[in-house]
Amino acid sequence: MAQSADMTAKVVTPRNVFIDDADDRLLAVELFDALRDASFDGIGITRESFGEGESAALDIVEAKACELGLETDRDAGSNLVVTLRGREPELPFLACGSHLDSVPQGGNFDGAAGVVAGLALLARFKRDNVRPRRTIKLFGLRGEESARFGKAYMGSLALFGKLTAEDLRTTDGSGKALGDCMREVGADVARIASGEPLLDAKRVAAWVELHIEQGPVLVARDLPVGIVTGIRGNVRHRTVECIGEPGHSGAVPRWLRHDAVFAVAELMTHLDRHWRTLLERGRDVVVTSGVFGTDPAEHAIARIPGKVSFSFEVRSQSRETLEAFYDLFRSECNLVAEERGVEFKFDRRLESAPATMDTDWVNRLRQAAQSLGLPDEEIPSGAGHDAAVFANAGIPSAMVFVRNEHGSHNPKEAMNLDDFVAGIAVMRAAIEEAVR
Amino acid sequence: MAQSADMTAKVVTPRNVFIDDADDRLLAVELFDALRDASFDGIGITRESFGEGESAALDIVEAKACELGLETDRDAGSNLVVTLRGREPELPFLACGSHLDSVPQGGNFDGAAGVVAGLALLARFKRDNVRPRRTIKLFGLRGEESARFGKAYMGSLALFGKLTAEDLRTTDGSGKALGDCMREVGADVARIASGEPLLDAKRVAAWVELHIEQGPVLVARDLPVGIVTGIRGNVRHRTVECIGEPGHSGAVPRWLRHDAVFAVAELMTHLDRHWRTLLERGRDVVVTSGVFGTDPAEHAIARIPGKVSFSFEVRSQSRETLEAFYDLFRSECNLVAEERGVEFKFDRRLESAPATMDTDWVNRLRQAAQSLGLPDEEIPSGAGHDAAVFANAGIPSAMVFVRNEHGSHNPKEAMNLDDFVAGIAVMRAAIEEAVR
Repeated sequence: MAQSADMTAKVVTPRNVFIDDADDRLLAVELFDALRDASFDGIGITRESFGEGESAALDIVEAKACELGLETDRDAGSNLVVTLRGREPELPFLACGSHLDSVPQGGNFDGAAGVVAGLALLARFKRDNVRPRRTIKLFGLRGEESARFGKAYMGSLALFGKLTAEDLRTTDGSGKALGDCMREVGADVARIASGEPLLDAKRVAAWVELHIEQGPVLVARDLPVGIVTGIRGNVRHRTVECIGEPGHSGAVPRWLRHDAVFAVAELMTHLDRHWRTLLERGRDVVVTSGVFGTDPAEHAIARIPGKVSFSFEVRSQSRETLEAFYDLFRSECNLVAEERGVEFKFDRRLESAPATMDTDWVNRLRQAAQSLGLPDEEIPSGAGHDAAVFANAGIPSAMVFVRNEHGSHNPKEAMNLDDFVAGIAVMRAAIEEAVR
Repeated sequence: MAQSADMTAKVVTPRNVFIDDADDRLLAVELFDALRDASFDGIGITRESFGEGESAALDIVEAKACELGLETDRDAGSNLVVTLRGREPELPFLACGSHLDSVPQGGNFDGAAGVVAGLALLARFKRDNVRPRRTIKLFGLRGEESARFGKAYMGSLALFGKLTAEDLRTTDGSGKALGDCMREVGADVARIASGEPLLDAKRVAAWVELHIEQGPVLVARDLPVGIVTGIRGNVRHRTVECIGEPGHSGAVPRWLRHDAVFAVAELMTHLDRHWRTLLERGRDVVVTSGVFGTDPAEHAIARIPGKVSFSFEVRSQSRETLEAFYDLFRSECNLVAEERGVEFKFDRRLESAPATMDTDWVNRLRQAAQSLGLPDEEIPSGAGHDAAVFANAGIPSAMVFVRNEHGSHNPKEAMNLDDFVAGIAVMRAAIEEAVR
C-alpha cells in the first residue's frame, strides 16, 4: 500500500521520552489504508460531503470501533459518535474528533486524521481498561468541506442548530439540495431545519481536534506538531473593481492616464508593505488577492487597461486586526483613487468571525508536549475547522496540528506516521490530565 | 447630418490672422458627410481594409477630385493617387495624404481627415490656378489599420516593396487571405509579392500627412494642432508569466509565500516609478501592461495566486530609450524573482522601430503655424502611421496632428471643423513654401 509505505518512511524527531505508540501506529496504518482503499478515485481521495464516500468512511471507523469493543451510534445529524462512558456520566463530556468528508481529488488525512486519532485515544483507555472520570465522545463529523455545497462546517453547524432552512436548500453542482443529501444519509432534516440544537453545548466540557496543518509552517520550521492558538477569521470582497479610462497605449501620456493596472499594482504594493509592517509589530495577519485581472472583453496589449477586477481577503485571529486592516485597505483605495483619477467599486463585504482556542487547553497541550520532549510551538490556523464552530458555540476548544507536506485539498498531502503518533501522544496526555 | 452639425459646433481658437478657409470648410463637410453616409454601420464607421467600405471611400474622393478638375489614377497597389502637375515635373514630387480604411465601428476621421486635407490643398492650387514648381500627389492609401489582418500599413508597405509573400497569405477572421483581398480591389499582387517597389522613394521629395491626434494631449492642453516630431517605436512581450506557488491563502504566512500577484504588483509599481523618473529627465517613454491576470483555471479568492500572466509594452521615439527601458524591465524582473522566489518566463520579444520626422519639415510646419497665429507645439505620435513607413523608406516625412476628442477607433471621435481647417492651413503654408 503506497500510503502506509509513505507514512513509515522517515523518522524526523528524536525523542528522549518513551512513548507507548505501537498500537496507535498499527491502528493508523490499518484505518488510513482502509479509508484510502474505499475512497481512492484514480487520482486522489474523494469522500463527498453527505455522499457515499463519506458514509463509507463513517462505516469503516464505526466497524473498527465496534471491533475494539467501543459503543457507537449516529446522532440526529447522522454523524458517527463513539462513546467511552466515564465514571461520572452526569458530568459534561469531553468531545474529540474531526470530519470524514474530503474535497474531490483530495488527500487521505485532511479530517480523517483527527477521527483516527480520537479512536486511538479511546482504544488505549479500552485496552488498559481505564475508565476516565468524564465520558469521552469521538465525533466522526460529516460535511466540513465547502467544495460540494459552497458552505463549510455543515455537520458541526447542524449540531448547534445553526444550519438554516436556506442553507438546506443550497444545491450542489448537479442541482441536488443539501437537505435532500442529508436526509438520504439518515439525518433528521426537519429537526435541523427547525434550528433546534442536536447537541447541548452545556453538556460538552471541551472539544479537542487533531488536524494536519494545511500550510507549510511546521515543515519549514522542522516541527512535528503545533498547538493552535486560534482560527483566523476573515473579511473579504469577492470582487472590487478599479475603473480607470481605456485608451491608446501609445497616445496617452502618463499625466493624462487613468491606468487601472498601475493603480491596483500600487494599491497591492502598499497593502503588502502594511502587511509586512504589522507582522514586524507582532500582529497576526494574512493578506491575499487571489483573483486579479483586466477585462478580457476589452483588454489588449496596446490598450491602456481601463478596468481591473480583483478579490480582497484579510485573515487574522484578531477581530481588531481584521477591522484595522480593512480600514487601511479602504483608505489606500481612496488615496490611489485620488492620486490616479480612478474609481473603486466594492461588492458586498463578507466576513467570518475568528475563533479563539481556550487558553487553559492551549496550556494543557503545551505542557503535554513538553512532558513528552516535543516542541510546544504555538501556531495560528489559517484555514477554518469544525473547532471554530464548537468554540463559537461557547465550548472550550483546542487543536493539535500535525506536520504535513504539500498542503491539503490535493492528493499529495503527506503526513509522516511518526508525526501523527506524536500528535496523538500530545492529545492523549492533555486529555488524560483533564478527564482524570 | 449629425456629423457636420458636430463639426461646426464651436470655435475654440481666436485668430488674429485672416485665413481663407471657406472652401476648405465646404469641401470638408461635403466629403465627411459623403464618407459617413457610405460607411455608417449602425453604430460607427466601417471601411474594412481592402474591402468594400474602403473602396467606396476611394471612389467618393476620386469623384470629387475629378469634379474639381484634378487628375486621378490608381497605382499598382490600387491606392488612389490625385496629381497636380508642377512646372518642373522631372523634380521629385511632394506627396501628401493618409489612409481611407477604418477599424470596424470606428470613427469618420482617423485616416480620412488626411486625405480630405490633401484634396483641399490641391483644390486651392486648382481654384487659384497656381502651378507649383514641383508636382504634388495626394495618396488615398488602403490598408493602414491592423484590425482586419493583424498587420498595419499594408498599403504603404506595398508601395516600398515591403509586403512579403508571407504577409500576403495572412488571413482575416473569415479565413480570406490578404493577397486575395488586394487582388479583388485591383492591386497587382504578383508585383507586390515580388518585393518590387511600386513607388521609387528617390522620386518622392517629402511625405506630409495630416491626422487626428489619437490621444488626449491637444484637448488637455487646449491646442488645435500639433507638429509631430516622431512616431514612437515599441518593444513588447505579448505574454510574460510570473510563476509563484499556489497554496491555501490562510495557511501560508508571508515568509513562506511565493505570491505572483504581489510580485507582479511590485514589478509594475517599480516600472511606473522608473517611467516617472525618465519623464522628469525629459525622455520620451510610455509604458503599458494592457493585459494582466491570474489564471482562471486555478485562481480562487482563498488561494494564493501561483501564476500571473501579463503583457509588457514600452514605446519611445528613441531607440536608445526603448533599449534602456527594456533592460530596466528585465533587471526588475530578476530582482523581484530573487526577492520573492518567483520565476519570470518571457515569450518572444517583438519590436517596431521608431521613426523620426524630418527636422527641416518640422521647422517649416512650426513656422507656418506661427505665421498663422497658431500654437506650434511639438508632439510625439504614440500611434503608428503610414508616415513611419515613408520615413523609414528614406523619405523626409512630416505630420500635422489635429485636436480630437475621445481618442480614435471608436464612433465618438470628435474633430472640430475649426481645428481641421487650421491644420490644413498649417500644412498648406508649409507646402507652399516648399514647392514654390
